[in-house]
Amino acid sequence: MTNDSSSRISDALRDWIASAPAGAKLPSTRTLVAQYEASPVTVQKALRTLTGQGLIESKPGVGTFVRAVRTVKPSDFGWQTGALGAPRNRFSPALAVMRAGSVDAIELHAGHPDRELLPERLVRAALARAGRSDTALTRSPVAGLPELQSWFAAELAAATSSGVTAPLASDVIMLPGSQSGLSSIFRALVTDGRPLLIESPSYWGAILAAAQTGVRLIPITSGPLGPDPEDVARAFEETGARAFYAQPNYANPTGTQWSATTAQQILDVVRTYGAFLIEDDWAHDFGITNDPTPIAAGDDNGHVVYIRSLTKSVSPALRVAAIIARGPAKDRILADQAATSLYVSGILQTAALDIVTQPGWHTHLRGLRHQLRSRRDLLINSLAEHAPLAHLTAIPPGGLNLWLRLPDTTDLTAFIRECETHNVLVAPGDGWFPAEPTGPFIRLNYSGPNPGAYPHAARIIGQTLDHTN
Amino acid sequence: MTNDSSSRISDALRDWIASAPAGAKLPSTRTLVAQYEASPVTVQKALRTLTGQGLIESKPGVGTFVRAVRTVKPSDFGWQTGALGAPRNRFSPALAVMRAGSVDAIELHAGHPDRELLPERLVRAALARAGRSDTALTRSPVAGLPELQSWFAAELAAATSSGVTAPLASDVIMLPGSQSGLSSIFRALVTDGRPLLIESPSYWGAILAAAQTGVRLIPITSGPLGPDPEDVARAFEETGARAFYAQPNYANPTGTQWSATTAQQILDVVRTYGAFLIEDDWAHDFGITNDPTPIAAGDDNGHVVYIRSLTKSVSPALRVAAIIARGPAKDRILADQAATSLYVSGILQTAALDIVTQPGWHTHLRGLRHQLRSRRDLLINSLAEHAPLAHLTAIPPGGLNLWLRLPDTTDLTAFIRECETHNVLVAPGDGWFPAEPTGPFIRLNYSGPNPGAYPHAARIIGQTLDHTN
Repeated sequence: MTNDSSSRISDALRDWIASAPAGAKLPSTRTLVAQYEASPVTVQKALRTLTGQGLIESKPGVGTFVRAVRTVKPSDFGWQTGALGAPRNRFSPALAVMRAGSVDAIELHAGHPDRELLPERLVRAALARAGRSDTALTRSPVAGLPELQSWFAAELAAATSSGVTAPLASDVIMLPGSQSGLSSIFRALVTDGRPLLIESPSYWGAILAAAQTGVRLIPITSGPLGPDPEDVARAFEETGARAFYAQPNYANPTGTQWSATTAQQILDVVRTYGAFLIEDDWAHDFGITNDPTPIAAGDDNGHVVYIRSLTKSVSPALRVAAIIARGPAKDRILADQAATSLYVSGILQTAALDIVTQPGWHTHLRGLRHQLRSRRDLLINSLAEHAPLAHLTAIPPGGLNLWLRLPDTTDLTAFIRECETHNVLVAPGDGWFPAEPTGPFIRLNYSGPNPGAYPHAARIIGQTLDHTN
Repeated sequence: MTNDSSSRISDALRDWIASAPAGAKLPSTRTLVAQYEASPVTVQKALRTLTGQGLIESKPGVGTFVRAVRTVKPSDFGWQTGALGAPRNRFSPALAVMRAGSVDAIELHAGHPDRELLPERLVRAALARAGRSDTALTRSPVAGLPELQSWFAAELAAATSSGVTAPLASDVIMLPGSQSGLSSIFRALVTDGRPLLIESPSYWGAILAAAQTGVRLIPITSGPLGPDPEDVARAFEETGARAFYAQPNYANPTGTQWSATTAQQILDVVRTYGAFLIEDDWAHDFGITNDPTPIAAGDDNGHVVYIRSLTKSVSPALRVAAIIARGPAKDRILADQAATSLYVSGILQTAALDIVTQPGWHTHLRGLRHQLRSRRDLLINSLAEHAPLAHLTAIPPGGLNLWLRLPDTTDLTAFIRECETHNVLVAPGDGWFPAEPTGPFIRLNYSGPNPGAYPHAARIIGQTLDHTN
């Protein structure tokens, strides 16, 4: 994205502007082109950068001028403390998993796949077509683009058990990303102050959305086959909760996939207690050694509220997700989405539909599966060889992450920091626990850039563990 | 968007599928091309439509097959009533202003400008460039694309009074549309159950967001020059509210612009009570007889929380808006946005920045002003001539709407319905009142399609008023 010759010009002009009086006129584009031996496009780009920074303003047909310098004085925002009261949520928006690494860092901390794992050709072609379509200039219906609603419904219908009524397109609500959907579901189905069961550990974004919506989390320990259905039943009984948030397939962070027996038993428990299972099928496109079957495919009485996103598998810039729900629950969620986001950009929906209905999409997913398998196995083998103290809790059959337990004596903060000084970025496990962490865990993502560096990263992790234990 | 030859093929195949057994293989694309005398692209499009409807599934390299028909049985969602409890919000998502009209209806009810008022050439060019850029495949920072934050800050800085510290790019939070921003502001600054002052009438989207976030609305009557500052002071005093939501420039629905004196006095009141003014500058790009000066341009102590959207002036598909706020209030709002939407699509931000930094953008805005003026005046003159019973409350100096009071004896529901039978769609004023409506009002939008029909529409409105009074 950096354009050296345009940055060179904007840097030089910034110096000139700093010493120029307010209102001074800049040389013409033609003069700048000659002076910097650059193309008009490059000069225009530099001027746009400076305009965006508020340093200059252009008056079309007249010229470009230095903006008046503004006074700067210290501000006192102390009065706001009284007006605001205590915060609901102490999470920092500077989330560990969204931190950008330095150029040569090995990024095992992030949560989204690297560009080389995305269907770049399909994304660019679909965006070009969407930009030429009518949806570029029109408004999408509140519940979403009907064709994309149909696609999401058909995807779940294809997995639906015989004897179970498949979902309809009208059961689908399109979302500007799954985070917005989780917030809406929690507000609409659980409401402020009420309890919500959640696996422990579980997705930090769900924990964050729950904190922000004022929902009270009740952690349920999840083992290698998923949570114990009896634990779930006991928690419903004791707390009066009417909803359970879970990731039954390739849970983030552990990679756990519920066994078919667990899935059926938990669905039965949810029915018994007249409750909702909020099924976050975040890794639907990331099966490695098997394919995920949504629990929602076995329910037609509105007990499972299903959420699936395309953001991670298509592109982080194409934020499109969907909720599939039935009955009054769907109406409640739709009312919340209408009140909080009105509708989803038609461009993003059109482009997403284009991508997932191309034959190339299935080809891409098949290739992705192979890449994820070899990345996962390379990281596992590298850790086994170079970092034997890091205990892999299970080999994940899908998803994007390894979940590792470090020796109990590890100072997790010191460990993370020392890895970082060696340019290996690792996510501390604490953020995935709805209550206190049960030990020093780390999450390593095997979908980031530069998998060739995994052996080196494993060596750093191993050496650092030796130091900090 | 309808492609007749592709619809023809999908319709024919749908009939064939209805009588085919599950798993039956469809003829090859080549066969279909020959059979329907259509291009391969058209046949593929028809197949994609059927796939999206869940009727067929393609197995790459094998063929396309009829999907198994699913059983359908009546579902019982009655159990959900107990699980959900009473709803927070009884607004229907089928909002009057978002209703789609029939093809030949005259749409005076909608809230967004028609396509002919949008910068179509700039939008398409910007989307094409954004689709080729790095942002198509990468993740935007939580607070937004830095260059677009700078642009929004510079826009407000350009209006900032001398002696007032201008906002910085880091004071800007990018949003996936202003509706999401209003929800975040209400949750972050007012919180559940607390009072919020609001002009009456005011924007229905703000009333909806307040209902959904559980904020208690305190209506303040707004006259032709804005609300009476003494009313605002009294409401702060009596209710203990710490925030006032308002649209000081070209308010929706009335078009009212606060006088400079009112603006200064209300800012003083807000300061006196240690409160926030939530300034919704929704019509910043829609000045007709003057230019809007944001109240935020006169504040640097964090009392004004400013929100501005590009969705209405750029394209309804390019949902991008920004909040400018300072101090802990900004941190609270950012934390809420991070928890509810994580980040805004980089494609939409890149395209929006591209558009508003083109010289053509200012040319477009100048042309838009002329078009809005002639549309507004044509509608006003047509109503004066043909519907003298509809009383125009004021000639709006900007914005997109006329706000008309009908005779007290009007049955508003019958009036709206009778207009609709004559293909004239009109929005009943009730939705803009935070409490009971103070009379039968209608809002007419003069930015919809087909302004040439305004005289005809005014005649229908006039005749209908004669009937229903």
